Amino acid sequence: MPNRAWTLQHRPEGMPRPSDFALVELPDAPLGEGELRVRNLWLSVDPYMRGRMNDVKSYVPPFQLGKPMDGGAIGEVVESNDPSFQRGERVQSMLGWREEAVGPASAFAKLPDLNVPDRHHLSVLGMPGATAYFGLLDVAEAKQGDTVFVSGAAGAVGSVVCQLAHARGMRVVASAGGPDKCGWLKDVGVDEVIDYKAEPNLVKALARAAPDGIDVYFDNVGGGHLDAALAVAKPFARFAICGMISSYNDGGALSLRFATRIIGARLKIRGFIVSDHYGDFDRFHREMSEMVKVDQLHVRETVLEGFEKTPEAFLGLFTGTNIGKMLVRV
Amino acid sequence: MPNRAWTLQHRPEGMPRPSDFALVELPDAPLGEGELRVRNLWLSVDPYMRGRMNDVKSYVPPFQLGKPMDGGAIGEVVESNDPSFQRGERVQSMLGWREEAVGPASAFAKLPDLNVPDRHHLSVLGMPGATAYFGLLDVAEAKQGDTVFVSGAAGAVGSVVCQLAHARGMRVVASAGGPDKCGWLKDVGVDEVIDYKAEPNLVKALARAAPDGIDVYFDNVGGGHLDAALAVAKPFARFAICGMISSYNDGGALSLRFATRIIGARLKIRGFIVSDHYGDFDRFHREMSEMVKVDQLHVRETVLEGFEKTPEAFLGLFTGTNIGKMLVRV
Repeated sequence: MPNRAWTLQHRPEGMPRPSDFALVELPDAPLGEGELRVRNLWLSVDPYMRGRMNDVKSYVPPFQLGKPMDGGAIGEVVESNDPSFQRGERVQSMLGWREEAVGPASAFAKLPDLNVPDRHHLSVLGMPGATAYFGLLDVAEAKQGDTVFVSGAAGAVGSVVCQLAHARGMRVVASAGGPDKCGWLKDVGVDEVIDYKAEPNLVKALARAAPDGIDVYFDNVGGGHLDAALAVAKPFARFAICGMISSYNDGGALSLRFATRIIGARLKIRGFIVSDHYGDFDRFHREMSEMVKVDQLHVRETVLEGFEKTPEAFLGLFTGTNIGKMLVRV
Repeated sequence: MPNRAWTLQHRPEGMPRPSDFALVELPDAPLGEGELRVRNLWLSVDPYMRGRMNDVKSYVPPFQLGKPMDGGAIGEVVESNDPSFQRGERVQSMLGWREEAVGPASAFAKLPDLNVPDRHHLSVLGMPGATAYFGLLDVAEAKQGDTVFVSGAAGAVGSVVCQLAHARGMRVVASAGGPDKCGWLKDVGVDEVIDYKAEPNLVKALARAAPDGIDVYFDNVGGGHLDAALAVAKPFARFAICGMISSYNDGGALSLRFATRIIGARLKIRGFIVSDHYGDFDRFHREMSEMVKVDQLHVRETVLEGFEKTPEAFLGLFTGTNIGKMLVRV
């Protein structure tokens, strides 16, 4: 079997380009003691990977030039030198962007037994779903009756935030780009949808959609969305800062006209990373898999077919080609 | 006795000017049932008053054009139509910027019996001191061993934050403008002082002063100070946003180059207003008056003599003419 991988060739400045990646053939790796060989079936591409392309210290180390990229992946064990894993088992790892993942058994985890399609473990029942769940309920402390504003609302995280908030009795105001995404969000129960690409003034649009203000802002976007949320926040509103995709590529400064409202409205703004909540994943898995099964949560995934498409899938995150979670089927 | 007041004549654009204020003679006010007449002795001028000069909704209503300004004041009862107040008693009110305050007894409070000079009730044992106390300990949850960065550190609030943090076993890094302020801060126990007016690069200066990062940022300034704090914040650092004096006059946008660190470092940023903590003032009064008495907290006040100087005192806040609390002795 061939074993190809996508490596990072250049650290991008601004928006990454296809030429920043290279498709390489990895040499045959003999399987060491305690190691697994896994055929990857599904790969995840996520906005946070953009940060790892810069050579700066952050909460995850930067990607190494000339080395295979990392990322969430689900695969099937094809060879095991560890007695606790059997050939044919489905596992997940961070050894994505390659067709075959080889590593110590500790780098792999069996899929939790939730009786859902495998790929959901990379979307609603995996990292993006957990980001939505813990960000909304624990970080932003959102509760029934709150008005919740969600940016990047049609994405992997945002679309789960919207539906979870709706299911918990919150009023949901969502922003997304374009009629397809906005229409879908209406279909899954969002109360007010803002097509930010069609709005000349986001502050005014948000004030119309939430005339009494917002109790919670779930930020996937940063930039003008964060500023608009500051402008309309109610006293003591809580902001969960999950991502700022609008600034990952431009490298420019975030400009906030309404920053002093942090003081006047006594806002509580918290950044978070889902891995800090791994200890509480059982609760998340239990509650969210139930929602999926009873169709309270509509899973939307955008799947690109073929390992070759991995960079294209990744780049599409920044132009907004996906609705729901962006995945690659290897 | 004459009864003059300073009124707001124009809503300033940008930095206020002396001509935005007018000194007027108020007509004699007959004393109604349940009212007090108080001769003001001390007036407070505070940065937050700049916000009230704009005609916008905020946590306090805007000043009215042509009417006397409001502000913290301490005075002596000269006439009382309320049995619970006696002539000669010292009281505080928000009826400042005037020589004589007339109003219902409910607008006045007797000075708490803390055995300190009256004027301290407008500084370390009044609103600025309480802002420091609750902001540092409750909002920022600062504790022994933390490295705390304080901007506007020589001002009424910042100077109390610095000394309280020092007394509680924190490492204090402070920023102020000019050698006089910085020297005084060193004298009262600040570990590292940054003279921001002499620093070409605040981020680098702060990184030198706090090589392991900061656990807490107490923000009185906003702007580049807030950005530098974002740059060097440790994981899970807490920011108490008390003021953004750097942007009160310029009306421009806050520009942050390091905003994405909110996510990576999981920062918790909270705005606050001291009046939300009034219910807890006994604890503050008890602990801080003790610190003053045992000289653990060095009280510094800049006093301008004469009611005529009130606007000059206020304007000086924005050019940094004060060390410690700025007061007017009527």
